[in-house]
Amino acid sequence: MQIKCLAAMKEKGPLEDFQYDPQPLGPYDVEVAISHCGICHSDINMIDNDWGMSAFPQVPGHEIVGTVTATGMSVVNLEEGQRVGIGWQCGACLECEQCATGNDNLCGESRATCVGNHGGFAERIRVDSRYVFPLPEKLAGENAAPLLCGGTTVFSSLRNFGVTPGMKVGVVGIGGLGHLALQFSRAWGCEVTAFSSTGAKEKEAHKFGAHKFVSSEEKESLDSMAGSLDFIISASPATLDWATYLNILKPKGILCVVGGVLEPMAIPAFGLIMGQKSVCGSLIGSRAAIREMLDFAARHGIEAKTEVTSMKKANEAVDRVRKGAARYRMVLKN
Amino acid sequence: MQIKCLAAMKEKGPLEDFQYDPQPLGPYDVEVAISHCGICHSDINMIDNDWGMSAFPQVPGHEIVGTVTATGMSVVNLEEGQRVGIGWQCGACLECEQCATGNDNLCGESRATCVGNHGGFAERIRVDSRYVFPLPEKLAGENAAPLLCGGTTVFSSLRNFGVTPGMKVGVVGIGGLGHLALQFSRAWGCEVTAFSSTGAKEKEAHKFGAHKFVSSEEKESLDSMAGSLDFIISASPATLDWATYLNILKPKGILCVVGGVLEPMAIPAFGLIMGQKSVCGSLIGSRAAIREMLDFAARHGIEAKTEVTSMKKANEAVDRVRKGAARYRMVLKN
Repeated sequence: MQIKCLAAMKEKGPLEDFQYDPQPLGPYDVEVAISHCGICHSDINMIDNDWGMSAFPQVPGHEIVGTVTATGMSVVNLEEGQRVGIGWQCGACLECEQCATGNDNLCGESRATCVGNHGGFAERIRVDSRYVFPLPEKLAGENAAPLLCGGTTVFSSLRNFGVTPGMKVGVVGIGGLGHLALQFSRAWGCEVTAFSSTGAKEKEAHKFGAHKFVSSEEKESLDSMAGSLDFIISASPATLDWATYLNILKPKGILCVVGGVLEPMAIPAFGLIMGQKSVCGSLIGSRAAIREMLDFAARHGIEAKTEVTSMKKANEAVDRVRKGAARYRMVLKN
Repeated sequence: MQIKCLAAMKEKGPLEDFQYDPQPLGPYDVEVAISHCGICHSDINMIDNDWGMSAFPQVPGHEIVGTVTATGMSVVNLEEGQRVGIGWQCGACLECEQCATGNDNLCGESRATCVGNHGGFAERIRVDSRYVFPLPEKLAGENAAPLLCGGTTVFSSLRNFGVTPGMKVGVVGIGGLGHLALQFSRAWGCEVTAFSSTGAKEKEAHKFGAHKFVSSEEKESLDSMAGSLDFIISASPATLDWATYLNILKPKGILCVVGGVLEPMAIPAFGLIMGQKSVCGSLIGSRAAIREMLDFAARHGIEAKTEVTSMKKANEAVDRVRKGAARYRMVLKN
């Protein structure tokens, strides 16, 4: 039976009703009836073909929550009726150096849910069960969907770069990723500082777990924080004053970029050398990281703050994400 | 008794004979009769006041080998007659967070042997014994002097950023630091690739331990190495094609800058994000790192390849370093 979905028929085009014949259910595949799908900024990038790797009709969506409705013959980790989540990645070779060391998100043959595949703006989807994750009961679908990509991304940065609970963490950019980074950092046990250009977000930043709020527009406030943080997550897609944020790090501090900044970052070598500092990037998360993240989120009550609308209103929802108006993540519901 | 030494009397001036009254020997101080002093590029920076922190008369020199001739009343680790080495750092608070965690090279009150102090282009020097290191017998003074700063710097980058013997390491720039980085990386157990713009250095690079030699001028050769190295030490003071070297790293790879590049580094965020990569800097080494480095160098027969000349010919020697003509490190001898 064909799968009903929403697709951009051309670059930057609106989403329209579309149907496609799914691949036969492979031995490791499951079919999932989708209840919710978050909208990530990378869905917009795919609609707009910003990365030159879209294929039209392009069905976006990779923050998926739903229920397993069919399982291939080799599936061992899932059963029909189970509530599950699916994120950006939908496959890897599971054989290479990276896969063998639990870093399958860095596999050279990594496949993505909505790149060359039809994504989650749909009623159903068929995906390799190794990239379908049981959802803890405590997590509501409409708040959990954005954890699968956005939550994973910020959680993995803490997990992969040695952040420990005694550390002081900064989060720059309090949007879809940032509001989750505040929650994860707080639950991780850290002292948390939110940096935002939007003063109106201060109150909510504290609700998300920030101990402090600093205006990223006030150079003096930023400079007064010199040498105070161990780890900064840059969740902003904007070009920041990188030297200033490096200066906010303590010796051995790490600035981790998870926002897709397009312009090359101007990094002063002496800003790295003098304090043995690092600038790094982090990309989604491995299967192990996603499982750990879901467990951690359920235990600590971490959830995305979302605006939920019906799948039929996807175009309006996409517009809100384009404008940066969503507080803090849009989720489509079937 | 006054200490005879060589000083630049003004910015960029030649070295001239100079004498000064040493500070009284403090409880933790030792006096060292200098046998050898290496010339590091930062000595030139100090003579030229490139960093705006020189004080004239400026006595350069911070890769010192000599013999203890007097010890203060609280000195516990050294005795008269002992052969020792002294590097860039000559003091720290030994109380702060960094000092207390064995990262005293990152102490905010770190003091340097030839910044605000008279350095090692001299017959004698008085220094805090906590920054004076017994020299293993196997290390000849004229080859060991450059280990105290240059050797420490490259050794610490391997030590501090989790390089393990199974890894593949690249060294960019085969000069004073680079030729030591090749030796340390090889002895560390790694597969080692040398990158140089000087084809004539290929043979020697192999002698220093490189398994492979790649011309840094040939973009095709560099591109063919995509995804092959775990750790790259950039020992070049030049602006490199950073995106290309990031691309040479495997996922989770680290590019570590130890060369004092002045121009901001243009780092593509996606070059970091897509492979969870890092760019970092490393600065000399802690007391613990220096001790470990000296022990490691002695065990593995690591020594700087040096051109040795008398202290009296310091101006000619400085000129060779200025021109990048030294193969691979100049050392002055009393």
